[in-house]
Amino acid sequence: MPDLYDVAAIGNAIVDVIAPATDAFLAENGLTKGAMMLVDPKASAALYSKMQSAVEASGGSAANTIAGLASFGGKGAFMGKVADDQLGRVFAHDMRAIGARFENQPLVGGPATAVSMINVTPDAQRTMCTFLGASVEFTDSDVDAATVEAAKIVYLEGYLFDAEAARRAFAKAAALAHGAGRKIALTLSDSFVVERHRGGLLGFIETQVDLLFANEAELLALFETTSFDEACEALRTRCDLAAVTRSDKGSVILSQGERLTVKAEPVEKVVDTTGAGDQYAAGFMFGLSRGRPLQACGQLASLAAAEVISHYGPRPQVPLKDLAASRGY
Amino acid sequence: MPDLYDVAAIGNAIVDVIAPATDAFLAENGLTKGAMMLVDPKASAALYSKMQSAVEASGGSAANTIAGLASFGGKGAFMGKVADDQLGRVFAHDMRAIGARFENQPLVGGPATAVSMINVTPDAQRTMCTFLGASVEFTDSDVDAATVEAAKIVYLEGYLFDAEAARRAFAKAAALAHGAGRKIALTLSDSFVVERHRGGLLGFIETQVDLLFANEAELLALFETTSFDEACEALRTRCDLAAVTRSDKGSVILSQGERLTVKAEPVEKVVDTTGAGDQYAAGFMFGLSRGRPLQACGQLASLAAAEVISHYGPRPQVPLKDLAASRGY
Repeated sequence: MPDLYDVAAIGNAIVDVIAPATDAFLAENGLTKGAMMLVDPKASAALYSKMQSAVEASGGSAANTIAGLASFGGKGAFMGKVADDQLGRVFAHDMRAIGARFENQPLVGGPATAVSMINVTPDAQRTMCTFLGASVEFTDSDVDAATVEAAKIVYLEGYLFDAEAARRAFAKAAALAHGAGRKIALTLSDSFVVERHRGGLLGFIETQVDLLFANEAELLALFETTSFDEACEALRTRCDLAAVTRSDKGSVILSQGERLTVKAEPVEKVVDTTGAGDQYAAGFMFGLSRGRPLQACGQLASLAAAEVISHYGPRPQVPLKDLAASRGY
Repeated sequence: MPDLYDVAAIGNAIVDVIAPATDAFLAENGLTKGAMMLVDPKASAALYSKMQSAVEASGGSAANTIAGLASFGGKGAFMGKVADDQLGRVFAHDMRAIGARFENQPLVGGPATAVSMINVTPDAQRTMCTFLGASVEFTDSDVDAATVEAAKIVYLEGYLFDAEAARRAFAKAAALAHGAGRKIALTLSDSFVVERHRGGLLGFIETQVDLLFANEAELLALFETTSFDEACEALRTRCDLAAVTRSDKGSVILSQGERLTVKAEPVEKVVDTTGAGDQYAAGFMFGLSRGRPLQACGQLASLAAAEVISHYGPRPQVPLKDLAASRGY
């Protein structure tokens, strides 16, 4: 198979609704700062009616990663499910506008396109309430074999462990990818996702995952420990390569015998942390797909994360390719 | 009637789709930089398919003005027509989230909510292609008498001169407003609108308008002259009060015997001029409704315009009330 794509991703196809919020607003609405909570349409509408004036932007964790990859000049493909509605067309437009492959047919007659209500507090933390809508109707029949087999890395979004059909789609993608000699990458997505699916995730990581992305909280949740070193040690035996992000403390890359530390890129003012992990994964996999050394992959990752947290919204606003060139990365 | 509102506005209820673009893109698609072009759904979709990845935000000229007024701490009401669809709910949410009255029922079974495809070139100019959709279904029956009669200023968006039903709605609003001793304000909106409706606009200004907003190009188009002074003189005899914006040259306020000049607020980097005129009108009418002298109204207007052109999107991103306080305005 030719290398048509640097990364093919499977994730929830979501449009973000982003508004500023106060800490009091989170408290009043029972929201845990920094987390992602699943909500039904009624709760979503009720929350929306109380939120401030918002802007809408295509989101979805793995989709944001593909947007970041494209911004570096990488070639991406995305698989996910939107509905045949206005927000679904927005999501599809934005994916194709960046030059990524996105060919899954929209869902007709089912729930609406997924939306994530993102409340951004003055400390730049984002708190998400997601109505998954059409995105949970993604099944293994939506996994395009030719796309998976033509991608250097197949990237899976941990959030999808919440849907049984998506877990089957992951199994199919992993089998196809490995059958074609491709790598499987996974992001743990959220510590509550890890709590809900610890066993399933561990099993999947041990048997299928070549490259794992996690933040510190997710990693600690995975191994039920409070010791970062212990968690890193546990992960190292289960996975060839892993990148663990630690906010402003930078990130740690674990590879067979190695443990590399990568500094966070300085940011003048952190505005909105939405998409930080997604863009980190974008930079890392772009570097990897271009054969860059791990330390350089980490630098590209940190650069992409720094760009996205310096403004509202989950996707880069300047070409990451130019930004990387200007830093000599 | 009590003063329930500082400003009640009638305008097109539009959601903006905002993307960066090159000058070459405008040329390839036959777009006139800085102008607003009306497009049908087919042309709108065709253009969208060629545009870069975008963000969506509630827009509409007069609606943006009401958002700016609210940001200053003013009380606004908006009348306009959305469809019963996702973007219509976005528009309504954003209007209510800022504390403005917006009670027009969405249109069922007709065209979709209006969208404006806004291409922003590197020189920060915005070029708009608007599909008016449901917004042209606004009729005089959508003008709420109690709202009009309870507003210090009733603000009308010139763009609506393109729709005959809306012109009747303007006539109704003007009669109600003047009957209740209220003021009518009008913005000319766009020089092509002026070209299309010069006679109708002049007649309406002479008989109904107490306060006119225009930019230099619109004013010159109205009086078919290339002399700014001549146009100001012509306007002065037709209208009690007018504010004419001249981009970075500031603005001119014409009142009976007076001609005041207001400087533009300095802006570090102009990013996107969308909403500049709308926010100018917001600041001016907020000042006026609070009994501030004309020079101060102009300063508030310039401040609001400067804020909105310093970022993407047509509405303020910081509370204009705080910004004004920080400048001592």
